[in-house]
Amino acid sequence: MNSYVSSSESGSFERDMDYLPDRITRGGRRPSDGPVVGEPWPVEPGRYCLVAAPACPWASRSLVVRKLLGLEDVLPLATPGPVHDERSWNFDEQPGGIDPVLGIHRLQEAYLARDPAYDKGITVPAMVDIPSGKVVTNDFPWITHDLFFEWSEHHRSDAPDLWPDHLRDEMEEVMERVFTDVNNGVYSCGFAGSQEAYEEAYDTLWSAMDWLEERLTTRRYLMGDEITEADVRLFTTLVRFDAVYHSHFKCNRSKLVELPALWGYARDLFQQPAFGETVDFEQIKRHYYVVQDDLNPTGIVPTGPDLKGWWTPHHRDQLAKDLTDRTNVRRAG
Amino acid sequence: MNSYVSSSESGSFERDMDYLPDRITRGGRRPSDGPVVGEPWPVEPGRYCLVAAPACPWASRSLVVRKLLGLEDVLPLATPGPVHDERSWNFDEQPGGIDPVLGIHRLQEAYLARDPAYDKGITVPAMVDIPSGKVVTNDFPWITHDLFFEWSEHHRSDAPDLWPDHLRDEMEEVMERVFTDVNNGVYSCGFAGSQEAYEEAYDTLWSAMDWLEERLTTRRYLMGDEITEADVRLFTTLVRFDAVYHSHFKCNRSKLVELPALWGYARDLFQQPAFGETVDFEQIKRHYYVVQDDLNPTGIVPTGPDLKGWWTPHHRDQLAKDLTDRTNVRRAG
Repeated sequence: MNSYVSSSESGSFERDMDYLPDRITRGGRRPSDGPVVGEPWPVEPGRYCLVAAPACPWASRSLVVRKLLGLEDVLPLATPGPVHDERSWNFDEQPGGIDPVLGIHRLQEAYLARDPAYDKGITVPAMVDIPSGKVVTNDFPWITHDLFFEWSEHHRSDAPDLWPDHLRDEMEEVMERVFTDVNNGVYSCGFAGSQEAYEEAYDTLWSAMDWLEERLTTRRYLMGDEITEADVRLFTTLVRFDAVYHSHFKCNRSKLVELPALWGYARDLFQQPAFGETVDFEQIKRHYYVVQDDLNPTGIVPTGPDLKGWWTPHHRDQLAKDLTDRTNVRRAG
Repeated sequence: MNSYVSSSESGSFERDMDYLPDRITRGGRRPSDGPVVGEPWPVEPGRYCLVAAPACPWASRSLVVRKLLGLEDVLPLATPGPVHDERSWNFDEQPGGIDPVLGIHRLQEAYLARDPAYDKGITVPAMVDIPSGKVVTNDFPWITHDLFFEWSEHHRSDAPDLWPDHLRDEMEEVMERVFTDVNNGVYSCGFAGSQEAYEEAYDTLWSAMDWLEERLTTRRYLMGDEITEADVRLFTTLVRFDAVYHSHFKCNRSKLVELPALWGYARDLFQQPAFGETVDFEQIKRHYYVVQDDLNPTGIVPTGPDLKGWWTPHHRDQLAKDLTDRTNVRRAG
């Protein structure tokens, strides 16, 4: 995304959630849940391009899910650089400044191809129809949802069940709080327009972080022993926490590395290719510290933090095993 | 201090070191070392007022030394608030906005009493002659030096030897590097005028932090088993590290709490009244985050970091004992 500009009269941050809500579904079927505004577009290998800047946490969700599900061959990728201007993400850092899949210089071109009068945020992630060059959707929670539910015939054979049906209700609750208080909560701290609004946002964030720390003390992943969509959504914020949010957004009660369960959990995910290989700490830092010059007028990008810790053993697999053993002992006893 | 404004053409930070260099000495004697420009002023109980803002690291040195040496009764104190304007520290936060000892509202008044044409920095610490209301000196390294060497007849009976003669040469070397690379080094990071100057300052700082971490792994204090002036000078930077310098000055390779020896050392000092009781984290944070609006244009002061750790056991006394035991064993062997 990039349209985090509005703030309410009280100074609290409000995210613009007005998206192009088209869906890409199996055979163009009418989906059973979520927004259904325009006619659904059919899933077709090679037809769409995922535009996702590795710098952006909302876009990174789709990068992780694409890789977790093994969709790389059927869903080409375009990666805008970390530093966009006021109006658009762009491909300045590609050879010739042009994305090789879409043949455009600025993502705005794909939005204007969809709607010449488009005047809302030029955000990532976006799914673009390659033949017409038009943006189909930039509705990020539904993009990853549909990569799982609608693209399933193209998943790799051992793809994880990111949306286990029997956990769905609890998972929606967890994801709702993670979105409001953590994913968006860090922005509410950073873009608070008053000391009071900031302090309220800080308290909300840390209350959620405490809840997560406790939850992950007895669970390897947010919903138990297996990775779900909820983990993807939390990870993209955690991986930016010490590098950006702690200082730049003043989310500084502690660093992630000071929270044993959350830090172990974040490393556990990071050390899995679908997560770690989609992370680019340099792009992440440049994005926030250069683009958001209202918070960092010098434009200087911090050299730290030291990142070595991300590759250290986490022993979280042992946690899952211990819990299973203990449960079995209790059941046997 | 507050006159950290200049930067060289290369963008590297340069501190204005142009001070009023008068000395206050025993009986007004001519001191054997240091600056001797004006006629020395005689030490007299109750005659001078130390003006020192708890927010300021350079002023805090004198607050710690005054208390370590037990000079509170003979050297009255005036404490400007953390938020000064471009020209002066002030007493806005005192009742009526007036300091009760000096009867002034802005420290600038005492500088102008000394020299009506004074146009350099209105800095703290400053020693002010109470009868005339004139600043005697603001030359911070010599203020603490002279509190030790010149005010000795007024020290408490068990005052520490802050300048042990047999360690003097090594101590001067240590203090020189601590000043250049750490005390001032954090400012060189924060006020670097270019990415390149910042990265150079960051490397210098962290090279010095690594050297200190190693030094303090085998020594309870910088010079061995006893507190010296060198510790006072390092402490005032360390105590501000996680609260300010880590984020605000981008000194973010790691937090102090991630460096076991330095963090234990800082807590060891903090838990001694002369150190801990002169620290005011709220004033420290307000000073940097409000005054330096070129780095923090929103003026929002971070709520963190969590400070509970400062009061946790440090076991550094055990380190000194262990080292003594090992040395004795080696000697006996």
